[in-house]
Amino acid sequence: MTQETNDRPGARLTVASPDTKPVASLPPLHEHFPSSQRVYEGELRVPFRQIELQGDEPPLRVYDTTGPENPDPRKGLPPLRKPWIDARERSLHADGDGNRSQMHYARRGIITEEMRFVAVREQVTPEFVRDEVARGRAIIPANVRHPESEPMIIGRNFLVKINANIGNSAVSSSIEDEVEKLQWAIRWGADTIMDLSTGKNIHETREWILRNAPVPVGTVPIYQALEKVGGRPEKLDIDVFMDTLVEQAEQGVDYFTIHAGVRLPFIPLTKDRVTGIVSRGGSIMAKWCLHHHRESFLYTEFERICEVMRKYDVSFSLGDGLRPGSLADANDAAQFAELRTLGELTQIAWKHDIQVMIEGPGHVAMDKIKENMDLQLEHCHEAPFYTLGPLTTDIAPGYDHITSAIGAAMIGWYGCAMLCYVTPKEHLGLPDKQDVKDGVIAYKIAAHAADVAKGHPGAQARDDALSKARFEFRWHDQFNLSLDPVTARLFHDETLPAEPAKTAHFCSMCGPHFCSMKLSQDVRDMDEDAVAAGMQQKAEEFQQAGGELYLSAKDTDAAQ
Amino acid sequence: MTQETNDRPGARLTVASPDTKPVASLPPLHEHFPSSQRVYEGELRVPFRQIELQGDEPPLRVYDTTGPENPDPRKGLPPLRKPWIDARERSLHADGDGNRSQMHYARRGIITEEMRFVAVREQVTPEFVRDEVARGRAIIPANVRHPESEPMIIGRNFLVKINANIGNSAVSSSIEDEVEKLQWAIRWGADTIMDLSTGKNIHETREWILRNAPVPVGTVPIYQALEKVGGRPEKLDIDVFMDTLVEQAEQGVDYFTIHAGVRLPFIPLTKDRVTGIVSRGGSIMAKWCLHHHRESFLYTEFERICEVMRKYDVSFSLGDGLRPGSLADANDAAQFAELRTLGELTQIAWKHDIQVMIEGPGHVAMDKIKENMDLQLEHCHEAPFYTLGPLTTDIAPGYDHITSAIGAAMIGWYGCAMLCYVTPKEHLGLPDKQDVKDGVIAYKIAAHAADVAKGHPGAQARDDALSKARFEFRWHDQFNLSLDPVTARLFHDETLPAEPAKTAHFCSMCGPHFCSMKLSQDVRDMDEDAVAAGMQQKAEEFQQAGGELYLSAKDTDAAQ
Repeated sequence: MTQETNDRPGARLTVASPDTKPVASLPPLHEHFPSSQRVYEGELRVPFRQIELQGDEPPLRVYDTTGPENPDPRKGLPPLRKPWIDARERSLHADGDGNRSQMHYARRGIITEEMRFVAVREQVTPEFVRDEVARGRAIIPANVRHPESEPMIIGRNFLVKINANIGNSAVSSSIEDEVEKLQWAIRWGADTIMDLSTGKNIHETREWILRNAPVPVGTVPIYQALEKVGGRPEKLDIDVFMDTLVEQAEQGVDYFTIHAGVRLPFIPLTKDRVTGIVSRGGSIMAKWCLHHHRESFLYTEFERICEVMRKYDVSFSLGDGLRPGSLADANDAAQFAELRTLGELTQIAWKHDIQVMIEGPGHVAMDKIKENMDLQLEHCHEAPFYTLGPLTTDIAPGYDHITSAIGAAMIGWYGCAMLCYVTPKEHLGLPDKQDVKDGVIAYKIAAHAADVAKGHPGAQARDDALSKARFEFRWHDQFNLSLDPVTARLFHDETLPAEPAKTAHFCSMCGPHFCSMKLSQDVRDMDEDAVAAGMQQKAEEFQQAGGELYLSAKDTDAAQ
Repeated sequence: MTQETNDRPGARLTVASPDTKPVASLPPLHEHFPSSQRVYEGELRVPFRQIELQGDEPPLRVYDTTGPENPDPRKGLPPLRKPWIDARERSLHADGDGNRSQMHYARRGIITEEMRFVAVREQVTPEFVRDEVARGRAIIPANVRHPESEPMIIGRNFLVKINANIGNSAVSSSIEDEVEKLQWAIRWGADTIMDLSTGKNIHETREWILRNAPVPVGTVPIYQALEKVGGRPEKLDIDVFMDTLVEQAEQGVDYFTIHAGVRLPFIPLTKDRVTGIVSRGGSIMAKWCLHHHRESFLYTEFERICEVMRKYDVSFSLGDGLRPGSLADANDAAQFAELRTLGELTQIAWKHDIQVMIEGPGHVAMDKIKENMDLQLEHCHEAPFYTLGPLTTDIAPGYDHITSAIGAAMIGWYGCAMLCYVTPKEHLGLPDKQDVKDGVIAYKIAAHAADVAKGHPGAQARDDALSKARFEFRWHDQFNLSLDPVTARLFHDETLPAEPAKTAHFCSMCGPHFCSMKLSQDVRDMDEDAVAAGMQQKAEEFQQAGGELYLSAKDTDAAQ
């Protein structure tokens, strides 16, 4: 692709670079989600996935991240938001302040199309969306140069979101791999994508990802800046960093992780840690600070950075460069010193009406998770929290999607707005497609469990529909309502592959005689009169008696 | 095998039945756990697994469930406890009350070898073990007819334990498969095994499992009783049930799940549930009660059941036949009515000095988990709680080891003593070996995360050792300290298979330039004087200033 495309937001990838092979498209949606179709609601065409059920059961609509169907990666996605952005651009010139952020509009009382889109998606009022964005409690990451994205919102009064990291490294992977991982991750439910590429073709990889991303894309610009100075942290400065920001903002990146809270005086606080500084960006900046014996330029020049953010509406994702990399280092002085700084920086960003979320740990034992959430809300003035896990134990490399899904579900319940996934390859290597899927599914579980525990309106409807299908032996419905219908069906069919088993009143787990669901249905089918008269009466007597139970042998308190 | 073996506890399986194929042995321990060996402590030869580390790092000892090495399944395991049991048997005849339970000894102030064994295993005093068993807050499931078992304890002041269910069903699996699953499950860390067989050869399968089980074995006797009456619940009665209890107690089963809390008046309380009664035992008994319109014989004849339990020291695992099978049914009137009944039954069992634990749910959203634990402690007088998960969402069949590991970790932290695993096949089919392993590992994670969160003494040592190895790029140590070294190594080697990569200061995740661990070590290696003098001083100044941060632009509070 030519550099020129960068100057035309929403332009298609008409020219592939010579060394780029064609990218394979995913199979159609219904192959992964049988009996599902993408449907659109309202004039803004807000997408949902509608799952058709058997018999008289009404279809169920679920939130959908998968993007337009049958995309051609070489052409990129249609620029859904372009007319909205263009219209605002005209009035912006009249206004003259050059601030394009959703927060800026929200604070002036303007409800944008993005807010209306999000309102339909989340089943709330547009005014509620506007208010949450205005007060900084939620963000809509939506760079004006990324018109392909379908607007979504991150905030604790909305559905809990998940992020999937992709990106090549110096030793592995290609552009085609990364675009495929992007499509794969959104197919399974990733709400945003971070491109953490550090290898070759970093600009071009990102361009392909952005033009094909129906979800917001985040990056960590310091990685590319470091490439620009030959991989030597001490060579970094604000100018090369600003150049990188502009380059990436022009391409359409929706949020930037910036580790501006890694301050010089905090670095010695990590001295006695078991695992030091485990954030890449954090360790790069720590090295810079120590080498120059100076305060971080990300911190001292923060206002300059804000100028880029507001112009394109790039959201801050204030990085936790000093997050703990082990249980031993959780909730320590370094971590919380940085958190307070992130709160200060949040207020500076908000002064410019720039959207902000705050990144969080990491590795944290269960009993220390809530403190993270509580302090984040307090120090960062309710800006949305976006955590990596946290992992609740360090002893399971190869299974860190599970160690961290535990912590992620909990912190989501406590109020975390977005959960950054962890794959089974965490700590060990670069994730492949299967790892991406495993990570996304584990985090869809965590996010949904959090939504249900929070009592988020409507969240439990899918659980209830699936459980009802299970009890009624509608096997296809049980599969199709699940997060991964194909795997559920495959597991069932390993022992009972025949089609009649899909309506059978048992499975191989218990066999026909021992199926509790079947027995339980038999119980229901037994003389309804007897139940209604005799049983119900007895139950009521029992309840009226205060629920006290009696035994034939009454001397139970003689025990021990 | 001949029926005769049943009359000789500890006898070897010298005669295999004609249709039983030889059982394959597992590979030696070090193939799954490189640099590990089984070591024994003290005169009672209490087992640990010792993990040798590189350089000057001290070895780490971890709790070990794997049993004697190189077992021959056709011969069964050595009867470790036989001399202890025999010696007690002699004094028992002098005593004359016929009660062989650990609780009975504990309450008379006697510290058994089993208690001493457990004390070494858990690194506490024998007196503490005795006291916890005496007050019913912990149990040592140890049938006198199962001398092959290495004593272990279940109670909330000890390490959180996990159970793995195995067993064939009418449509799948064989004896060989089940013995192999037993060995496989304990290899990965299962603390107890439940044999839930319902198919053919139910007695013989159990015999093979018991003679090869170094861990306690639990069963649900109603399954076999139902087979004896042709699979028709209404034909059940206390006599066939008692016969079954005696048969299984004679074989050496260590704990029985008995659904004596499914009382007639509670059944109508399940009428409006989404998923009715999902416990197999619960639905069998519900059907019996409704058919006869009579109170459950398990409830009315509970004292008779106690006679068997005390004679062999079989522990009660009082089943939650009315547990919720979906989020919609969690914490309802039926569930808690049964829980209160289980508390009553606990006191009857304790009157006979019989050990008791209480089974719990099931499917419970995160916000409702703690109530389960709190009410169980209250109604059941601190008898140990033993839960199935709970699953925190219903929407992920195929991944229910994850949906439930979340709930299991939480309830373990809140005080649950044992977690019954859930495999990826839950709700879909009978687990195979891979499913058993996936379930066990997910639950080892949950149990360990709970131990750490509870602040259990020494629990975090393994996390700390692994994290230290990670930070020091001792890759082999990182693998070997993990729950599944082979998988961890395999994942690493997918992208960097060469042996030098095992000491390399990076992995394929970030590559050499972006490894935060390496950068962080570089930071540490930078002029130590500069750090010690300048940095440390600045940090102290900062701390002394009350941790207040300053910015070059000070007008941050203008932000809203």
